[in-house]
Amino acid sequence: MSLVTEPTLIFPENKVSQDEMVDVLENLFPYHPKWNTIEKMIRNTQVDNRYLLSPINQVTIHPGFEYRNELYKKKGLELAIRATEDALQKNKMAPKDIDMIIVVSCTGFLMPSLTSYLISALNFRPETKQLPVVQLGCAAGTWALNRAHEYTMAYPDSNVLLVSVEFSSLLFQPTDSKLSSLISNCLFGDAVSACIIKGKPESGDTGYLIENITSYVKKDTDHYIKYDVKSTGFHFGLDKDVMHSIKDVAPIMEDFINKEHDIKANKLDFCVFHTGGRKIMDELVSNLSLEEETIKLSRESLRDHGNIASGVVLDVLSKEFDSKSRKNNDLGIMAAFGPGFTAEINTGRWLLN
Amino acid sequence: MSLVTEPTLIFPENKVSQDEMVDVLENLFPYHPKWNTIEKMIRNTQVDNRYLLSPINQVTIHPGFEYRNELYKKKGLELAIRATEDALQKNKMAPKDIDMIIVVSCTGFLMPSLTSYLISALNFRPETKQLPVVQLGCAAGTWALNRAHEYTMAYPDSNVLLVSVEFSSLLFQPTDSKLSSLISNCLFGDAVSACIIKGKPESGDTGYLIENITSYVKKDTDHYIKYDVKSTGFHFGLDKDVMHSIKDVAPIMEDFINKEHDIKANKLDFCVFHTGGRKIMDELVSNLSLEEETIKLSRESLRDHGNIASGVVLDVLSKEFDSKSRKNNDLGIMAAFGPGFTAEINTGRWLLN
Repeated sequence: MSLVTEPTLIFPENKVSQDEMVDVLENLFPYHPKWNTIEKMIRNTQVDNRYLLSPINQVTIHPGFEYRNELYKKKGLELAIRATEDALQKNKMAPKDIDMIIVVSCTGFLMPSLTSYLISALNFRPETKQLPVVQLGCAAGTWALNRAHEYTMAYPDSNVLLVSVEFSSLLFQPTDSKLSSLISNCLFGDAVSACIIKGKPESGDTGYLIENITSYVKKDTDHYIKYDVKSTGFHFGLDKDVMHSIKDVAPIMEDFINKEHDIKANKLDFCVFHTGGRKIMDELVSNLSLEEETIKLSRESLRDHGNIASGVVLDVLSKEFDSKSRKNNDLGIMAAFGPGFTAEINTGRWLLN
Repeated sequence: MSLVTEPTLIFPENKVSQDEMVDVLENLFPYHPKWNTIEKMIRNTQVDNRYLLSPINQVTIHPGFEYRNELYKKKGLELAIRATEDALQKNKMAPKDIDMIIVVSCTGFLMPSLTSYLISALNFRPETKQLPVVQLGCAAGTWALNRAHEYTMAYPDSNVLLVSVEFSSLLFQPTDSKLSSLISNCLFGDAVSACIIKGKPESGDTGYLIENITSYVKKDTDHYIKYDVKSTGFHFGLDKDVMHSIKDVAPIMEDFINKEHDIKANKLDFCVFHTGGRKIMDELVSNLSLEEETIKLSRESLRDHGNIASGVVLDVLSKEFDSKSRKNNDLGIMAAFGPGFTAEINTGRWLLN
């Protein structure tokens, strides 16, 4: 049993609209041969706004991998501390109550990792366990909740802190003019988020109770979603084949729901989906025969914040916490997709008090 | 309960002796103001030989971060496949018998990660869980065994595959002339290793049965062991303060052994230590009042292979498997140290058949 408590989301202050991004990219690539297609695709992302770590005119300049990674460290730690303090406070907990810290983040690289910096900065117990993960991209949010669930299976009295640090704007590559690169420049947003997973819910607790978990790798798909690692840092790559992945993973999700709960996916009360993009969500709706209402909050997350990578599922979950329509014991699914092609999936119920 | 079965170690073919390294570095830095000190320190490492991914004249040339990371991917996957096949064969297992794959590796960065590539390459089940970790450096080997142990607590019937991929020679930075950098160029070796951790030992199994685990972070020590991330890749940094860490972690280890087994560290039958360097091992011997005999195989690992980062504990464990002196139920400790300053520790017993 593991209860995912209310997440904290922190968005940087630099708001950028999709209209502004169209202007920015048109200025950067004034003679792009496919500009009309690109502009049409950007306007079709269903992203209205995103929040970026730096003002947009700084985002589009590349000051070097070292500079960017230092900025990642400075701001990542600062916002991770704020998000952690808020998540602890929401649960009336102190750092000593946490047994494991998971930090997921695919937009910078630190050694020692942020888990270690957090243990020092906030006076966690020296024996607090660390689980820092960089390589699972957008699947990492649900992945982390699934690993936290397993940890509470091993230690039922434990509490796990999850922190997601994603500054995709630090991966803006001003010399990448490929269509997929320009679209992703307009899709990903920055955010730092945190939540606490409790092994033993207490009287009065509210949250998402994870019941069952599963993982999935679609084989031979390493070109679908990937990084090229260069002297200029990580270059995000997306192959159009990735669109085939949902039709493959949807039956896996359907079978999982059916096996664990003996119902069809379209009988679930809610869905918390990684907002990989509009097309991914359309494919989920179509392949699982979902009612639009059940994925409304996932679409809102994409519209309001863009794809904030591993943090998306925490953002959607946070919107679910605010939703007036949820009822105790409502059954839902959470799923996130990332490089590999990897999917991490769980089902759970609302515990309301 | 979790049984660590016999590890497989693969060393690349390019053997380099410490005498050769002295010549190579003297040629690279002919006017180094501290050369005499450096040469003395290199000859004092108690490393005789190491095995590197490329011939030494290629190691010392920097062909760019992108080139090196591509080589890491190509050779890392090739040797990870070989090590995995061998570890499976030793246990008469097939890929379908594995429930989770942990890959630890701090000398390259891939997304998707090697866990995902391995699942495709060797026909693991699509639902195999992935745990790829980059940021725990030399602590990652014991860290991974501790996480595997927890996984088998959650799922007692499960089997975990651990793979360590370390090519420290890909971090050779020919423009780093700091003393600590030159010493580390002569300390780290390359290796790929693997082993399987079984939740339920079967009749006839032999291995190291993990009994208790713990973790430790010494606060505010992020400068002790770290990477600087630059356009030229990861630059390894070691502060001389790291020497203070053993006197702090030794009482933690002593208390842990005392609490779990009611004996002093120097009554243990064997020790599997990360070979961070000669000084680290001398400090462990002195602070825990150990008999030299109990850490003999850790010293042999350093002498024969250098510090192979997260793979060291698997190398020492492999030597323990070959040792004629071990007896059923012998009690020992395993400990590894890494960035942060982080220590991962466990105790366990030999199961012999």
